[in-house]
Formats: sequence, structure tokens, C-alpha cells
Amino acid sequence: MSILSTELTPEKLQKLNIKELSDLSGEIRERIIQTINSNGGHLASNLGIVETTVALYKVFNFPKDKLIFDVGHQCYAHKLLSGRADCFDTIRMANGLSGFPDREESEYDCFTEGHAGTSLSQALGLCEGRDKIGDDYCVIAIVGDGSFVNGLNMEALTSSEQKPKNLIVILNDNEMSISRNKNGFYKFISKGTTKKSYLKGKSAFKKVFRDSFITQFLRKIRNFIKRVFNKNNYFEKFGFKYVGVIDGNNVAETVKILMRVKETAKQRAVFLHLKTTKGKGHDKAEENATEYHGVGKDMKISTGMFSLALGEKLCSVMEENKNVVAVTAGMKDGTGLNSVATLYPKNVIDVGIAEEYAVTFSAGLSASGIKPIVCVYSTFLQRAYDQILHDVCIQNLPVIFCIDRAGLVGEDGKTHQGVFDLSYLSHLPNLTVLAPTSKNELSEMLDYALSVNGPVAIRYPNEKVYEYKDSKKFIKPDWTICREGESVAILAVGPRMISLATSVAEEFKGKVKVINARSIKPLDSEMLEQIKDMPIITLEENVKTGGFGAMVIGYYADRKIQAKVKSFGVQDKFIKHGSVKEQLEENGLDVKTVSMAVEEMIKEGKSV
Amino acid sequence: MSILSTELTPEKLQKLNIKELSDLSGEIRERIIQTINSNGGHLASNLGIVETTVALYKVFNFPKDKLIFDVGHQCYAHKLLSGRADCFDTIRMANGLSGFPDREESEYDCFTEGHAGTSLSQALGLCEGRDKIGDDYCVIAIVGDGSFVNGLNMEALTSSEQKPKNLIVILNDNEMSISRNKNGFYKFISKGTTKKSYLKGKSAFKKVFRDSFITQFLRKIRNFIKRVFNKNNYFEKFGFKYVGVIDGNNVAETVKILMRVKETAKQRAVFLHLKTTKGKGHDKAEENATEYHGVGKDMKISTGMFSLALGEKLCSVMEENKNVVAVTAGMKDGTGLNSVATLYPKNVIDVGIAEEYAVTFSAGLSASGIKPIVCVYSTFLQRAYDQILHDVCIQNLPVIFCIDRAGLVGEDGKTHQGVFDLSYLSHLPNLTVLAPTSKNELSEMLDYALSVNGPVAIRYPNEKVYEYKDSKKFIKPDWTICREGESVAILAVGPRMISLATSVAEEFKGKVKVINARSIKPLDSEMLEQIKDMPIITLEENVKTGGFGAMVIGYYADRKIQAKVKSFGVQDKFIKHGSVKEQLEENGLDVKTVSMAVEEMIKEGKSV
Repeated sequence: MSILSTELTPEKLQKLNIKELSDLSGEIRERIIQTINSNGGHLASNLGIVETTVALYKVFNFPKDKLIFDVGHQCYAHKLLSGRADCFDTIRMANGLSGFPDREESEYDCFTEGHAGTSLSQALGLCEGRDKIGDDYCVIAIVGDGSFVNGLNMEALTSSEQKPKNLIVILNDNEMSISRNKNGFYKFISKGTTKKSYLKGKSAFKKVFRDSFITQFLRKIRNFIKRVFNKNNYFEKFGFKYVGVIDGNNVAETVKILMRVKETAKQRAVFLHLKTTKGKGHDKAEENATEYHGVGKDMKISTGMFSLALGEKLCSVMEENKNVVAVTAGMKDGTGLNSVATLYPKNVIDVGIAEEYAVTFSAGLSASGIKPIVCVYSTFLQRAYDQILHDVCIQNLPVIFCIDRAGLVGEDGKTHQGVFDLSYLSHLPNLTVLAPTSKNELSEMLDYALSVNGPVAIRYPNEKVYEYKDSKKFIKPDWTICREGESVAILAVGPRMISLATSVAEEFKGKVKVINARSIKPLDSEMLEQIKDMPIITLEENVKTGGFGAMVIGYYADRKIQAKVKSFGVQDKFIKHGSVKEQLEENGLDVKTVSMAVEEMIKEGKSV
Repeated sequence: MSILSTELTPEKLQKLNIKELSDLSGEIRERIIQTINSNGGHLASNLGIVETTVALYKVFNFPKDKLIFDVGHQCYAHKLLSGRADCFDTIRMANGLSGFPDREESEYDCFTEGHAGTSLSQALGLCEGRDKIGDDYCVIAIVGDGSFVNGLNMEALTSSEQKPKNLIVILNDNEMSISRNKNGFYKFISKGTTKKSYLKGKSAFKKVFRDSFITQFLRKIRNFIKRVFNKNNYFEKFGFKYVGVIDGNNVAETVKILMRVKETAKQRAVFLHLKTTKGKGHDKAEENATEYHGVGKDMKISTGMFSLALGEKLCSVMEENKNVVAVTAGMKDGTGLNSVATLYPKNVIDVGIAEEYAVTFSAGLSASGIKPIVCVYSTFLQRAYDQILHDVCIQNLPVIFCIDRAGLVGEDGKTHQGVFDLSYLSHLPNLTVLAPTSKNELSEMLDYALSVNGPVAIRYPNEKVYEYKDSKKFIKPDWTICREGESVAILAVGPRMISLATSVAEEFKGKVKVINARSIKPLDSEMLEQIKDMPIITLEENVKTGGFGAMVIGYYADRKIQAKVKSFGVQDKFIKHGSVKEQLEENGLDVKTVSMAVEEMIKEGKSV
């Protein structure tokens, strides 16, 4: 009989012995693999943390104690143990469980997560408030080595020399993102930890004094060395008791240390350094945790068409021009740069999960004469909004942004939607904002961006299906007519919207003009003047406020042109996980809804 | 005869001896004080760095070598020495010199600056590009201790374990922001530096081994201790040779060390730790560098009306409710929190220049049950866009944002304009966005924000003049009619725009309805329905794309209402320094321009 069941409450788990906890871990791991196999999800990160999660449930009382997962792509075991085992197979599906912690879903989820480096700040805020109010729970933040160096987290770490009691920060060190990038911080913590150094110190000491007696003088030296070690431990400086390194995949060891740490934390904050194996228990994921970070159904690893196209294009660009450099922030695989890095390793720089640095560093590159291309997902580029504004646009430096995962993202849900970029980019002076609908257009836009002397943003979704080929070459920011029609004009942004517009046009044979609005900033004023007397529909995968449709409407209003414009876009709410198709429908971006609008407009046109 | 003149080129400066350099420093200091006295400006920071700047010009060849000022509020001496002495008295005035480094102004200014923590990223980008291209200049970044801990800078610091050659990072340590906040990092660098520790180590060693002979064993110990020290120095870990602490106000000492450092940098990157005195040479500024950080004409220190009002209001709120906590990011003086901190020190938290942390920490506070109020300038809140979106709005946590310096900021110019906030906030789901026009409204809006269970942003300018008192109490997000009229409706956001609208209305006795559009999100749909048949003008101190006017136009378009709306706002370009009045005029936000629009609308109305 299996231990993992809907019956297994956190209270019951606390009564299990180590053997049972170990068995439970195995069951959880099996369940995770099986579920990801059918639903897709974050494989490697979730498999690595199973034993640690089980140990945490053994030692702490959730939800009274608070458990915060940085990024949150390692919360599956936590969900299975906090009363959600029965609906675990709905994970990442519409109306099912979220693949990330979600405040709305369970009181066991303190925060809705998805972006990196938030946990220490959230934990410090919780502790500060807890102590002010007089509550007495313990706050535990789990953060991976990749997220730890994010600027937000570093601000939290260095914010004070004293950290609150009953705070435990667990560094889940799986030697991932950081070591790959030769990041300085990783070397720092892995070499400079008290435990290792101290042991080394002790052994050196023993070696030196092997045969001699311990005099008062020598004791003094020993104490002095000890003091030096303690004083120089990084985390001790910032108010933590450092404990480590512990094998986080060993339930027995982790339970033992957590029980001790829980007691220590009553006196002072603890920084617990765990080593875990990413992808633990799944051969392929262990072997290649980066590729198996997030997988689709049937464990398929897929790269979007645009990401692949970008990789191809950059390879050919770099063959000609060694001064083009691609910069990413921990998204080398996802943005299509892997192939580029293989051919031109010196021309691809992955700075780790440091989006702000990626952008400002690129501004520096640009000032030196290099042509930098920042390749980041739409949702993560949000984190560098001021760096784009202040460090790139004010300087008018020719930095190129290739923004992947723009638009609706499907199963990853509300923390990952790329539906804000048109709004956070289009109001920035000096910036050109483009949206290709095909591989050719992406390539032509990149050529254009490389030729101009100012910043250019190119945004596209993670799309595999459509491959609309535009006939008119992109030479400068303009629009192109995909299909002629005289009754209604549809202005569509990006491949999915062009596909939608084309399907709608099919239904109204010859009546609907479809325009590929591939430049969002600037708008194509010539085209807008041409169609000003037609009813117009705008389609975009972006929130309506500050988006493309709003800009079209604003264009006409500024010129006192009484145009009829109906804009379709993402509603003013956070869009939950589900398939892209479901999310499009939820926002009225489907053939049925848009066709109804076209029909209405045609009718109104006739009655005038 | 004075040394500082238009004749003094960087080449000539290099020929001066130490005595002359010292005299030159005195002249520069005098000139800075005199100019700030008439133009206003950043006093304390500019006075502190004079000798260091002179020494840098003695040792390096600018503009071939690159000098980057973090924040840039310490660039006055640099401007005086780089060919801009003759127009120095135009600083911060329209068409005059900028108060910050500006790429457009001089080739000596590598980047346009204004925000904190950018310099190390910019410098690393420049070095990377330089080495790729094969140039051979030296890159020098000067960063204050307050800016150093900004997340962006920490990302740059920890980005690699190797730093490039010919890079010199100068930590201008004036024990300001950080020490005041008991920041952990400050203790770290001031206690943990090699120099001090090593000296201590050596003396301890000498003490212990005073009378004994040096055996092979003991040499081993000594080397071991040395290794430990070196290994544990923070900056050495991240690929810098650490040099410090040097008196940066002593020209002779600084020149000497810079010459050595210049040579060392040819082998490896150097981190040079200088101590300087902020406000050096001006008694009041030295004594109270925080207050004298930025001053107005005649060295006047002024706090905006809204900042003062916020301070007053918070004092009365905290008297009743100890669970209200104000959080700021190094802007305690500027946001009006000084008085609050005096009365309720436990309820004001200044996290230093760490805007992202301020917001996410507040999200944590909010989750604990505390009511956090984040008090930050509009331009700096840009840096926490994703934290507002992801860590506050997605969670729907009741965090309140009091956004000071919103709208046009006058003399600080393009890096400090608060003209993007309506655009970067209004498209965020769950967020309410308000703009008070008077002290009463600010107070009522804060009461409202404290009463609701979601995030609220309140934005207002640094305004001293107008004190429009609204008659209708703010109870929920709505608008109020200030003046009746039937021909044209003006919707105005904030005190300056209400004042402008009122002045315009005066000219058209009884014809212009003036509406205080104090809620930007949500819009007042009832009022919008009432006025839909009138010509409408919207006024806002924000870029037009994604701003208030665009939302009003979008509202009508969504409902197929053919309203006539003309929106006035800030143009799609970065607005340079000058007086607020000049900046308003430049953007058509003046009585003459708006009156013309009203007149035209009245005429058109009659001709229909």
C-alpha cells in the first residue's frame, strides 16, 4: 500500500519514521514523473527537491510555519503533501492546479511565484511583520543557486547586518546556472564556506603541529585562526548562522539537520546550504538538467519556431560580423542561443538570472562599438524596465531586444504571461517595437535593427504551428496587406493574430482586409490614413491599456479623425494557466468572437 | 591668477604639480558652491569628490580613457575640467549644461546618468567590448557606498570570478546612506578589508612570536594565514585586486595611489576604496550631508507640499494604528518621512537605494498583516516595475505606493522625469491609480487605500505653489467637477493640470467644465457617460502613450461612442532640464495652447 494518498495529512506525515519518509519520497518522485509525462512541467527542479520537502514537512508545522519557494518551479512535492494529491493530475491544466505556488489555490502557498530572486525579500518582510504583530511562526525560504544572485535577492541579503530570528534560508545548491556561467558568487560560496575552510584549517593546523605540544601561544593562534574564519564567512557577515553543506537528497540527514536548525533559528537566522541533484531519479533529467528543466507532454523538449529561427539567423549574422554579441539571462536554451553558442562561443554571453545586468551590460557593450542583442523572455524583461528606459533608451544606444515568449504562454500561467511588453515598451522614447509573424520577417527585422543607430525591440511568441509567410520584405517599420477586402480592416500583431485574422477573413469572402501590423512603434501612418474610413478591428496578445489597439485609436483621436476602431486584446486581469487556445478564447481572441464583431460592423456600415 | 579657466585643458592639467592641483581643487570647490548657490544642485556629493576628480585628470587621459560616474550627482568638477568651465553657470538651466553626465553634451560623458547602481554594469560592458574590438583604453567607474549595494550593481559584481584588465572601480565611501541604515554591506567592507585585517594579523603574529625563532613550521602558518586573508577578501573573490583605504580628499595621496593603480590595472582589475567627506568645504553640507544632498537656489532646502502633507498624515495614521509601516529606498527626506521617523522610528524603514527590495519586502510585510506604504519617487519606482507587477499585483496584496516627484521635475532633467508612471502602472491588473490635487485629497486617498484589500498607487508632483482645495471628499475612486461649463469639458490629472484647466476656464467664462480626474484607474465611467456629447480635453503630466488621455479615448472606443477627445500630455521624447514652467510649455501644457484648443472646439461645436 502506498503512503502517498489523499489521506496523508501533514500531521500524519510527522508520525512517519525515516524509512517511511524515504519510501514516501520515492512515491512522490514516481508521481511527479508520471504526471509531468502526461501534463508537461518543470521536471529537473521538482525531482531535485523531493527529499528536502518531505523532511521539511516532517520537522515544521505548515501552514502555520511559512514555506516560500523562490521561482516556485520546485513546488510539486509540496503540493502533493499539502492536501492537493487528489487533483495533482490536473496540474497546469485550465481550472486545475497551477504549476507554481499560488496564494489563491492554497493557504500552504504564501506567495504566487514564478520569477526568480524574490524569496529572501518576501521572507524578510514576513518576519518583520510577524515580529511587529507578535506572531511566532517560522519562515523558511528555499532558493536555488541560480536565483540567489539575482539583484533583488542580493539587495535583501545585504540589507542588514542582523537578520530576524526564526528565519531559515535554504540554499538549494545544484550547481546549475551559476557554475555554467563561471559566476563569481558560486565559487565564493562553494569554496569559502566555513565548514570546508574550517576543516581545511583544522587539518593544516594538525599537520603543522603534529608532534608539538599545545602551548598558550599556540592556542592563541588557533583561536585567532578560528576568529578569522568566522569573521570572513560571507553569510555570517549578513547576520546568518551558516550551516552546510548537507546532502538534501538524503532524508535522514536532512531531517536531522533541520531539527537542529529549527532550534538554532530560535536564537538567530540560519543559512542552510544543501546540495541536491537536479533531475534526481530520472536518468535523462539528471544527465541534462538544463534541457530537462521544463518539458512538454511525453517529456518532449521543444524549442519554439521563432527561437530556432533566431538561432539560425544569429549564426549567419555572426559568420559575417564578429562584433555582434548575444546576451541572455539564464535563457540560452529557451531563446535559441544554444546552437549559436556552439559555433560562436565568444559571441554568446549568459549572465545568469540577472536581467537588469544583462540590459545595462549590453548598454556598455553598445557604447564600446559592439552590437549587442539581448535575448530574454517577455515576462522576465519586465524586470529590466528601468534599465531599458534609463540605460538604453535615454542614451539612444543601438541595443537590440529579441523578446521570446511574448503573448499568451499557456500552461505556465499568470506569472509568465508575456502580455505586458507592448504596454511597457511602446511608451519609451527612441525605442522601435516590432512583431514578426514569420521566420523571414524575424530575419529581416534583425537586419533592420542591426542597421539603425537606436534601440529596437522585436517580440514574438513561443509558437510552433503557424508559419505565415509575408510577401512584402521588411525594410523599414511598416505594415503589409495580407489579404484585400473593402468592408472591414483587421490589424493583427504577431503570428497567432494574423492566423486568427486570416481565418475570420475566410468566413467573409473578400470583405475583410487583413493587415500585418508588424511595427507597433512607429505605427504605419500611411496605411492608417488609407483605411481611416473603414471600420477597423485590432488584434493583439497584450493587455489593452497602453497596447497596440490603444495606440491606433490614439492616432486617429490626435488627428481628429472619427474612425471606428474596435480593439481586441487581453483583459485587465491576470490570465491563469491553461492551453494557449483556451486563453485566447477566454480573451475573445477567437474566430467566433472576432467574426461576430466583423458581422456587426458590416451591418452597421450598410445601415449608414 | 586662478588656475581654473577656459584655458585649462586636460593636457595642461597633467603638467601641474601637486601644490597647483591642490589650489585648483580649492578653486573648483569655490566655483561649485557659488554656482549651486545661484542655480541649485547637488551640493554635498559634488563637494566630496573634487580632489579625487582632479587626481584622476592628472593621471588618466580623458576622453580616451573612460570615466563613469554612478548616479552622476558628483560630476561637477569633471564638467569644469572637461572644457565646460565657460558655460558652467548655465548648469541645470534650459539649454544649459545638465546637472548630470550627458552623452549628448560631451564626449567626456560616457553615459547619461541619474539612477543608481548602473556604473559597474556599464563599465563591464565597455571593457568586454573594448577587448573584443581591440581598443586599449582604461575604464574607471566611480560609485558611492549608497549606490554600490543596488541590486543591479550587485549583479554586476557577482557576475564573474574574473574581471577584465584596465578596469578600476573606485568606491567613494562617504559613510552615507548605508551606515545610517545599518546596512550589512557597509560593515562588511569597512571591517573586512585586507588592509586592516592583514595589519591586525601581522601584529597578532608578531605578538605571539615575539621572542621565538621562525621555523619552517611557523612560516607555513604565516603563509597559511596570509592565504586565508586573501582568500576571504570580498572583492578579491570577484576578481579584483583590492586597494584601500585611501583619503580621497588628499590630492597628493590620491595621485600617488592612482599612478600605482593604473599600472596594476594593466595586469588585473582594481577595486580602489577611497574615503571622502561628503559636503567637504561647506560647513553646513559637511555637518548635514543628507539634508544638503540637493539644494535649491540660495542653498535653500525645501520639501514639497505633498511630501510634507504625507508626513503629517502618516503621523496621525500611525498614532492610531501601529501596524502601518512606511518603507522607502533612500528617500526619507525627499518623501517627507523624516518627521514620521522622529515620532515613530519603528514604523519607518529605509532600505537604502534598493527599490526592488523595498517593494518585495513590503509585499512580505503585507502578507504578514502589516499595512505597508512604499514612499518612492516616480522615476525610481520604475526600477521596481516587475516587483509591483509580480510581487504585489499578482498577489493582490494591499501595498500602498506613495509616488513623489510624479510629472515634470524641472532642473534634474531627463533621467529624473516622473512622466512614465501612469503608463507603467495603469495597465497592471488589480492596481488602483490615484492622483490627488490637494493635501485633503492626499489624506482621503490614503484613508481609502488603507481601507481596501488590494494595491493602490497615489502619485503627485513635487509641488509648492498651487493648493487647489477640492470640495467633494474622496471616498471611492471617482472624479469631481470643479467648475461647471457646457461647451467643453477638461479632464485634468493632478494639481498643476487642475490649475492649468482652471486658468483656461477663466478665459471662457462659464463655457468650460473643469473635472478633477483624480482616479486614473478606474476611470469614472458615470462622469464619462455624462460628458460624452461634449468635446473633451484631457491634461496630464505623463507621456501620451498608455496614459490617462489614451485610457479615456479607449473607454469611448470600446463602447462605440464617437466622442471628441483631444489629449494633452508629454511628448514622445526625453524632456531635458529646465524649469517646470518651461517644460510644461514645451509640451503644450500651458494656458495659451490649451485655450487655443478650447476655442477651436467651441467653434467646431457651433458649426455642426
